[in-house]
Amino acid sequence: MKRLKATYGCPVELALEFVGGKWKTVILARLKQAPQRYGDLRARIDGISDKVLTERLKDLERLDLIEKRSDGTALVYHLTGRGESLRPVLEALYRWGNVLVEDLPVTIRP
Amino acid sequence: MKRLKATYGCPVELALEFVGGKWKTVILARLKQAPQRYGDLRARIDGISDKVLTERLKDLERLDLIEKRSDGTALVYHLTGRGESLRPVLEALYRWGNVLVEDLPVTIRP
Repeated sequence: MKRLKATYGCPVELALEFVGGKWKTVILARLKQAPQRYGDLRARIDGISDKVLTERLKDLERLDLIEKRSDGTALVYHLTGRGESLRPVLEALYRWGNVLVEDLPVTIRP
Repeated sequence: MKRLKATYGCPVELALEFVGGKWKTVILARLKQAPQRYGDLRARIDGISDKVLTERLKDLERLDLIEKRSDGTALVYHLTGRGESLRPVLEALYRWGNVLVEDLPVTIRP
């Protein structure tokens, strides 16, 4: 994962260092719905490989956006406080995607 | 630019096909402030090369998020209606980046 620069031109550019790239944001959007185990995420995110999912989860932990907790039988991924603070961004992306789909020959199948 | 899939697991994943990747969103955030010429964008976006800026502008035009109009002397990039509809996402990212910077050894210098 790239080191942060000392200076950024705008807050959006800084924010995207954390949530830029498709899979990190898709994982965060899933965890926004509910804490989930690795296997749940793997089953629910279409097209992601074990390698990429494992790497992105490590990135997100390092960025203090998610954390692992044991539920007694397995490790479960949760949004951290910083992850929770992303909720408005994730919800805005969700709403935009929902409107966008009406213009496109595409379906959304959760 | 990749073709769209027929099906997506969630609206966020679809949205990120359009605005995923750092530079496209940084360009949109700049154009959210005001319509700008190529040269303005090039001067104001730190660290982007001519090649990448030219490619991302073409991507954004193809996605119907921006358009070029002549102001009589030069071509000026504007957000389209679809681009304008992204404003809530860009504003949410802006607000999040502004809070995030307080936690980090980083400065924002527009």
